[in-house]
Amino acid sequence: MTDEKVWPQHALGKELNNWGRWGEDDQIGTLNFVTPEKRIAAAQLVRTGKAFDLGMPFDKEGPFKAGGFRTNPIHLMTLLPSDTPTPDGLISADDMIITGLQSATQWDGLAHAGYGGRFYNNVPAAAVNNFTGASRNSFHHAVTRLISRGVLLDIARLKGVDRLEDSYEVTEADVLAAEERQGVRVESGDIVLLRTGSYKWFLEGDREHFLGNAPGPGLDICRWLHGREVAALAMDNFSGEVWPSPVEGAMIPFHQVTIRDMGLTLGEMFNLEELAEDCEADGVWEFLFCAPGLKVTGSTGSPITPIVLK
Amino acid sequence: MTDEKVWPQHALGKELNNWGRWGEDDQIGTLNFVTPEKRIAAAQLVRTGKAFDLGMPFDKEGPFKAGGFRTNPIHLMTLLPSDTPTPDGLISADDMIITGLQSATQWDGLAHAGYGGRFYNNVPAAAVNNFTGASRNSFHHAVTRLISRGVLLDIARLKGVDRLEDSYEVTEADVLAAEERQGVRVESGDIVLLRTGSYKWFLEGDREHFLGNAPGPGLDICRWLHGREVAALAMDNFSGEVWPSPVEGAMIPFHQVTIRDMGLTLGEMFNLEELAEDCEADGVWEFLFCAPGLKVTGSTGSPITPIVLK
Amino acid sequence: MTDEKVWPQHALGKELNNWGRWGEDDQIGTLNFVTPEKRIAAAQLVRTGKAFDLGMPFDKEGPFKAGGFRTNPIHLMTLLPSDTPTPDGLISADDMIITGLQSATQWDGLAHAGYGGRFYNNVPAAAVNNFTGASRNSFHHAVTRLISRGVLLDIARLKGVDRLEDSYEVTEADVLAAEERQGVRVESGDIVLLRTGSYKWFLEGDREHFLGNAPGPGLDICRWLHGREVAALAMDNFSGEVWPSPVEGAMIPFHQVTIRDMGLTLGEMFNLEELAEDCEADGVWEFLFCAPGLKVTGSTGSPITPIVLK
Amino acid sequence: MTDEKVWPQHALGKELNNWGRWGEDDQIGTLNFVTPEKRIAAAQLVRTGKAFDLGMPFDKEGPFKAGGFRTNPIHLMTLLPSDTPTPDGLISADDMIITGLQSATQWDGLAHAGYGGRFYNNVPAAAVNNFTGASRNSFHHAVTRLISRGVLLDIARLKGVDRLEDSYEVTEADVLAAEERQGVRVESGDIVLLRTGSYKWFLEGDREHFLGNAPGPGLDICRWLHGREVAALAMDNFSGEVWPSPVEGAMIPFHQVTIRDMGLTLGEMFNLEELAEDCEADGVWEFLFCAPGLKVTGSTGSPITPIVLK
Repeated sequence: MTDEKVWPQHALGKELNNWGRWGEDDQIGTLNFVTPEKRIAAAQLVRTGKAFDLGMPFDKEGPFKAGGFRTNPIHLMTLLPSDTPTPDGLISADDMIITGLQSATQWDGLAHAGYGGRFYNNVPAAAVNNFTGASRNSFHHAVTRLISRGVLLDIARLKGVDRLEDSYEVTEADVLAAEERQGVRVESGDIVLLRTGSYKWFLEGDREHFLGNAPGPGLDICRWLHGREVAALAMDNFSGEVWPSPVEGAMIPFHQVTIRDMGLTLGEMFNLEELAEDCEADGVWEFLFCAPGLKVTGSTGSPITPIVLK
Repeated sequence: MTDEKVWPQHALGKELNNWGRWGEDDQIGTLNFVTPEKRIAAAQLVRTGKAFDLGMPFDKEGPFKAGGFRTNPIHLMTLLPSDTPTPDGLISADDMIITGLQSATQWDGLAHAGYGGRFYNNVPAAAVNNFTGASRNSFHHAVTRLISRGVLLDIARLKGVDRLEDSYEVTEADVLAAEERQGVRVESGDIVLLRTGSYKWFLEGDREHFLGNAPGPGLDICRWLHGREVAALAMDNFSGEVWPSPVEGAMIPFHQVTIRDMGLTLGEMFNLEELAEDCEADGVWEFLFCAPGLKVTGSTGSPITPIVLK
Repeated sequence: MTDEKVWPQHALGKELNNWGRWGEDDQIGTLNFVTPEKRIAAAQLVRTGKAFDLGMPFDKEGPFKAGGFRTNPIHLMTLLPSDTPTPDGLISADDMIITGLQSATQWDGLAHAGYGGRFYNNVPAAAVNNFTGASRNSFHHAVTRLISRGVLLDIARLKGVDRLEDSYEVTEADVLAAEERQGVRVESGDIVLLRTGSYKWFLEGDREHFLGNAPGPGLDICRWLHGREVAALAMDNFSGEVWPSPVEGAMIPFHQVTIRDMGLTLGEMFNLEELAEDCEADGVWEFLFCAPGLKVTGSTGSPITPIVLK
Repeated sequence: MTDEKVWPQHALGKELNNWGRWGEDDQIGTLNFVTPEKRIAAAQLVRTGKAFDLGMPFDKEGPFKAGGFRTNPIHLMTLLPSDTPTPDGLISADDMIITGLQSATQWDGLAHAGYGGRFYNNVPAAAVNNFTGASRNSFHHAVTRLISRGVLLDIARLKGVDRLEDSYEVTEADVLAAEERQGVRVESGDIVLLRTGSYKWFLEGDREHFLGNAPGPGLDICRWLHGREVAALAMDNFSGEVWPSPVEGAMIPFHQVTIRDMGLTLGEMFNLEELAEDCEADGVWEFLFCAPGLKVTGSTGSPITPIVLK
């Protein structure tokens, strides 16, 4: 690494650093904000019993083209009705999946990104390797914390557009204005869903645009995330931050500050379209959010199908 | 198939058949009992904010031995800190999983088992194939319905044992007695967790015993499941029913009636140990149960990490 | 199956049927023509010591697009230099492949195609299933037989074209004319390489065309293959026969006759370009051909990197 | 790395170093000894036409136990007869493999092992990474060179034993004595097969012993390998050298010298039993050896089914 130049994300990360805040052995960061009291309060938000599915399907029709670094999930049948010719006419089917933990709707956990040779809470780079996977900061420690109050901030609607323009950077002013417009306030332990409208590209079948110059948040909202004690932040774009990065020479500076310094779990490729319609219609932007993910030992994140109950 | 002999499970399945009950296009069966009202009521059960993780870890230390039909999940790193030598010192890690959808804690969906050439709701065997996966009854239709009121029935504690003996069949009398002892009543839309104690074998590292002659429910409880309108039934054994089957010549007769005729989703390999301790301690056997799983298109089930909030 | 209509390929298959020719337990068909004497003679064809690689690379840049039935090979690193910080400075790397056995240059073995509920040598369809793979006719029985005399027949050059036109059907007249032009005669135990020029589409990066309306052989050459006692037939197209099939209602009639009735192993996606140049230049169209493949138990074929020595 | 201590393998490697010998861009090392002349001579060794298969089956019954670093190959059916209900009764089957390139009989290529931050021919460690695989020294460059004269040296028979004792180190004196006893001399471009008898453990089903304290060659034979200009060296043990290493603190010192300094491709888990019987019987220890492997782009080696023709 080259820390001689002071990178803006590293300076900001130093300011917002949460290392040691929950002990030197902590592996879940801001998910510590999801307390028993928070769960009780969040459950009270189920008022109409409506349910929303925020997940991208896991299948070969996913966003990735052949030949790239990431590939779409591969679903295989491993048992079929023709395999079980038993006396009682049993038919049975099993299946298998081969998937990147980052191949569709997903959590980026605290072993997913860092800098300066360190992940969240001073974990050295070598703690993440082929023998152990993520021997520290594995996502699997987080599963019980990913049910909490969810709050949707709809930046596209704030701006009066169908979707934000390519590479638009969502700012602190934007999220404050969205709270104001929506009459909701993000509080400690919330899981924030930030809507840019980018997911529409995927829904419309334009995978190239979806994986292209995405709108998303940048360094400017980090202090707000920190001050409000946000537990996790999820987005509808593919990249988890504005793409490409406005910080020259830095590919994912927002990931660096949030995941590595703050210990903030990030969500990507959330389908917020139907939920946002409903929230706009009834004026209720808070709900019970549920996306525990899969407890894969040593993982840097998890594929998920997030569910919202209002 | 040979339906000339009348198999007891098929006779029972005819009696309890739910085909057409929710329309001829229905693909989720008894999960239809999870209504908006049910969700609202279930959410009220979060009273202390305690969370319980009922999942088996997804890793190569799973229950299966090398050489068998099923294999343990394989977790692979696809990006490591050493791969990203960027100017700003970025380190990043990605990963992948290769796993049977039935390799650890899981839902068995409505394309997983049938007989007589048919799956639930008259779906022909050929609807599940290598081209489409489960083109009908795919688990992915069910994800929003797997958050509901959960009720734990602890049959091992009812019997005053650490775990039920090998191949013990849990009966209707047992579940009624467990309700009586616990002071709880299973109702429409509930997700029932049935504890046999079998999971202790896995926790103790005796994989062979865990995958051997498991205690579990049999045909005798099907009328009770039907009458109470249970939405889904999960167990702590590997097999989802008593093993081996007491019906000679039939491998999984309980699966046949429940999944195929009733349209009941089954859960297997749930770790109920810690939750059961807590329920015994505070006398509260009902809670918010949350296990939406993964929306894998065309799937016969899903790997899950179920979470309970009390 | 519906054998009421007499399909032309089935009538031809009946005529050319080799079932029982090498015993009722035979699993390798026409590869029995590769005898010890044949090997000795084939080895004598190495005269200049030149070697030719006829394989398609196994990687994610293969011919298949995302979302289709088949996917390109996925190569993954499972150990990297950063994983092995030992006292003596060891660096080590391991890797893994996930690949269809039919995803690049390949043999189609005798469990790959059939009709009428039977594979080669009267093997029932159910012998190929998810529990055993191909319990009969597995490719792995064939590995020692895939070194023999190879003969290239260059149909494109015969016709004076760069590559044959889309969906051109190579006929018996064509192969006879090619032998005549080239001054070579195919004999018992030979592995014939049939060049259409179709592979050029792949080399030029036009995957869609390569996987489209391919030139290739049809039923017309089956009697010639049979009469000459060809051991295996390999081609440079993706489909192993002219595509789409000229027999209405039949997808792969040539596969049916050759693989199922004759017991002939077929090769697909062979890169014959460099070899054909050389043969045209020196007028020598026979050589030692070597493509044993991988001994995957219960397989329907094998990925290969065929090598020719002249 | 810590080169302050002078490790014996590094001192030896410096002495036997072949970097630059075939140009600074060379990626195949001692396989350069396999020349056109060598191929011509090797082909002449096919005298009886007998063929021998030296491969371990690729299937889930391989040597590895569940839970370890490496796993056995997984073979999956991706198309079955029940999937193709076409008018002409077609039945078809496809399949897939998930396998470590080091999971059964295999070549270790020149990107598999090194030290001091370098692989063969001064290639930096970072050239092998998750983005490119082995961007230098990939095995796939070697495929045309793995057909040559093979010579079997049977050290177990030399010692008059069924198999060498655990952790026995094969020395230069041993290989010289074996040549003497057998009346054969290893020459430039040969592929040497070194028999320890260790493979018998695998054949007898004792996987633990097979993967345990294996007999094999050590540093002592490196000068002989170098002086004789051996092209590749294959063994019947799992480890490719005596195990555990007699050099304290060094795990695979023989790999370091041979692969990294000499550029020598190593073979592991070769089944030499049947071939050795035959050679002992007829007194002919030389033959045409053929194991081109699979051209996996960016690979550190290849799974193989080696074939010998005598």
